[in-house]
Amino acid sequence: MTAQTPVAEFPGFATVRTRIDGLLDDFLTHKTHTAGAQKMPGEVPRTLHDFLFGGGKRLRPLLCVAGWHAAGGHGNPAPALQVAASLEMFHAFALIHDDIMDNSATRRGRPTVHRQLAARHRGGRSTAAADHLGAGAAILIGDLALAWSDELLHTAGLSSRQFTRVLPLVDTMRTEVMYGQYLDLAAAGTLTDDVELALTIVRYKTAKYTVERPLHIGAALAGTTSAVQAALTAYAIPLGEAFQLRDDLLGVFGKPGRTGKPCLDDLRDGKATVLTALTLKHASRAQAGQLRLSLGCPTLTEDQAEVARRIITATGAPDRVEEMITKRYERALAALETAPFGQVATATLHSLAESAVRRHA
Amino acid sequence: MTAQTPVAEFPGFATVRTRIDGLLDDFLTHKTHTAGAQKMPGEVPRTLHDFLFGGGKRLRPLLCVAGWHAAGGHGNPAPALQVAASLEMFHAFALIHDDIMDNSATRRGRPTVHRQLAARHRGGRSTAAADHLGAGAAILIGDLALAWSDELLHTAGLSSRQFTRVLPLVDTMRTEVMYGQYLDLAAAGTLTDDVELALTIVRYKTAKYTVERPLHIGAALAGTTSAVQAALTAYAIPLGEAFQLRDDLLGVFGKPGRTGKPCLDDLRDGKATVLTALTLKHASRAQAGQLRLSLGCPTLTEDQAEVARRIITATGAPDRVEEMITKRYERALAALETAPFGQVATATLHSLAESAVRRHA
Repeated sequence: MTAQTPVAEFPGFATVRTRIDGLLDDFLTHKTHTAGAQKMPGEVPRTLHDFLFGGGKRLRPLLCVAGWHAAGGHGNPAPALQVAASLEMFHAFALIHDDIMDNSATRRGRPTVHRQLAARHRGGRSTAAADHLGAGAAILIGDLALAWSDELLHTAGLSSRQFTRVLPLVDTMRTEVMYGQYLDLAAAGTLTDDVELALTIVRYKTAKYTVERPLHIGAALAGTTSAVQAALTAYAIPLGEAFQLRDDLLGVFGKPGRTGKPCLDDLRDGKATVLTALTLKHASRAQAGQLRLSLGCPTLTEDQAEVARRIITATGAPDRVEEMITKRYERALAALETAPFGQVATATLHSLAESAVRRHA
Repeated sequence: MTAQTPVAEFPGFATVRTRIDGLLDDFLTHKTHTAGAQKMPGEVPRTLHDFLFGGGKRLRPLLCVAGWHAAGGHGNPAPALQVAASLEMFHAFALIHDDIMDNSATRRGRPTVHRQLAARHRGGRSTAAADHLGAGAAILIGDLALAWSDELLHTAGLSSRQFTRVLPLVDTMRTEVMYGQYLDLAAAGTLTDDVELALTIVRYKTAKYTVERPLHIGAALAGTTSAVQAALTAYAIPLGEAFQLRDDLLGVFGKPGRTGKPCLDDLRDGKATVLTALTLKHASRAQAGQLRLSLGCPTLTEDQAEVARRIITATGAPDRVEEMITKRYERALAALETAPFGQVATATLHSLAESAVRRHA
C-alpha cells in the first residue's frame, strides 16, 4: 500500500465530522417528520437534535472511522460512517442519563435535558412535580437515543459478516460502560483514597468505552486481524485513561466558560476520581478533615470550592495526575510506533491523542 | 399440513414459559459469574434476576412463540424462544424505568427496583440522597436490561435473512412503546376527558407493544406473508386494547393482594386512561369538581380513593369500559376465525386472548 492511497481515502477530521453530523441531522429530521404525521411526540427527536448539535467533540465517531482506516478499510466509507454516527447517538443516551444521575444543571453551556423539560412542562405543577416529570421525560429521551443508536447500526448497510463481527463488540461496549457507570455511582460520596478503584472506573467508563471499543468496532468493519486489535488496545487504554484524568482535572480546575459545565459539580458529587483518591491519600489529617466537609456536599459554594481546590493543590495530587497523564500519553504514542497501521492512520491517531490529552474543554 | 404436525410442534404454554425462564436464568447467572470475575457489580444481574423471577405473565414471549407458530414456524424452536426471551428482558427494562417515572413503591407485591436499591445503599446517606442514588442505580439497571435484550437477540442464532426481517420490527416496536410512554407521562395529571388521546396511548403503549409486535416478530422469524401479518394485526390491536382497558379497571378497582400493586397508584398519578376520560366526560359538574381534587393527588388516602371510586362507578364509566373490552375481545376472536393460521395456532391465540382479558391480576 503506498502512502498516497490512504491519504486519498481518509477524509480528514473536518470532513468526517461533517458527514457524521449530516447523518445524525437526517435521521432526527426524518424522525421529527414521521412523529408529526403519526401524532407522536416530535418533542423527543427535536430535543435530541438540539442536544446533539449543542456541542460535542465527536471523539468516538472519529476514533471509529480511524479504526476502520487503521485496519485497512477502503472503498465506500458510508457504512463505517453510519456505525460511527450510531456511537454518537449512543453517547447522547449515556450523557442524558448521566446528567439525571448526577443531578447536573448544565451541559455544553446550556441547561441539561431534564432541566429543560422540567421548565418546558412546568404548567401548573409544583417545582417537585415538574422536576420529576422532567427527569422522567429525560429518561425516556435517553432510552430512545439508545434504541435509535441501534436503528442507525441496523440500517448502516452492513454485510452479514460485518454484523457478525460488530454486534458482539457493541454489546460488550455497552455492558462495560454501564457497569463502569454503576461503580462510579455507587462510589460517589464515599470519599475513598482507593486509587485502584478509581482507575478501574476510568478503565471501564472511559478508556474502553471512549477509545478502545470505537477503534475496535471500526477495525472490525474493515475485517481486522488480532494483531491490529491488540495494537489498537495498546494505544487506546493508556490514551483513554489520560483522557479521563484530564477530564477530572478540568472538572475541578477547568474554566466553566470553556468546559460548558460548572466546575463545582465534580466536587459537589464527591466523585471517586483518581484526583480525589490521590488527594486523600497524601493529605494531612487536618487537610483530609477539611476536605471531608466539602467534597460531596451538594450545597458547596464557590468560596468553599476554592478552599478545597487549594488543599487539593497543596497535597500535590494535580501534579501527580499530570505525571500520570504524560506517562500514559507517551505509552500511547509508543504503541503507535510499533503498530501495523499505515502512515496516515498512524498520523491520524497521533493527532487524536494530542487533542484528547492537551485540551481545555 | 395436518393437524397433528403443529400439535407436536407447539410446546404448550407451560413448556414455553419454562424454556423462556431457563434462558433468562442462564443468561443472568452467566452475567453474575463474569461480573464477579471482572470486579464488576454483580448486584446488577442479581437484581434483574430477582425482578424477572418475582413474577410476570410472560405474555410477550408467549405471543412471540405463538406468532412464529401461526406463520408456520417449524423445526428447531430455539432461536424463536431466545428472541422471545429477549422481549421479556426488554419488558423488564420498560417496567423498571416506568416505576421510576411513576414513583411507584411496589411491583409484583415487592418494593420496586429503585426503592430496593435506595434501601440497600442507604449507608450514612440522607433519605433524599439515598432515593436519588436508588433512582440512578435503577435507571442503569434498566439500561442494562435494554442492552442485554439486544445481546439475547444478537446471540439467538438467527440466519442473516431472519435478522433482516426481525431487526426493523424490533426497532419499530421500541420507538412505538417509548413514544406511547412519553405521551402517557406528559398527559398524566392533566385530567383530560379526551378519549381519543387515551386510546392513542393505549394503542402505542400496549396494543402494538404487548400484542401486535411480539406476534409480528415471531411470524417474521418463520418467514411470514403479508396476509399473515395483517391477520395478526386484526387480532392483536383489539385484543391489546382490551388488555389495557382491563388493566385500567384493575388499576382502580383491583385487589392489591392479586395485582401485586396498590390500586391507589393510578389514581394518585392521575393517569390519562380511557376510564378517567370517560368518567370526566360523563360526570356532573359537582362530580367532576370532586374528582379533580383527588385524581393526581400524590397524597391521596385510601378513604379519599374510595370516594373517587364511588363517583367513577356512578358516572357509568366502568360499565362503558367493560362494554369496550367485550366488543374488542369479540373483534379479536372474529379475526381469528378468518385468519390463515393452523388449528392449533388459532386455539393458542384464542386461549391467550381469554387469559389477557378475563383476569384479576
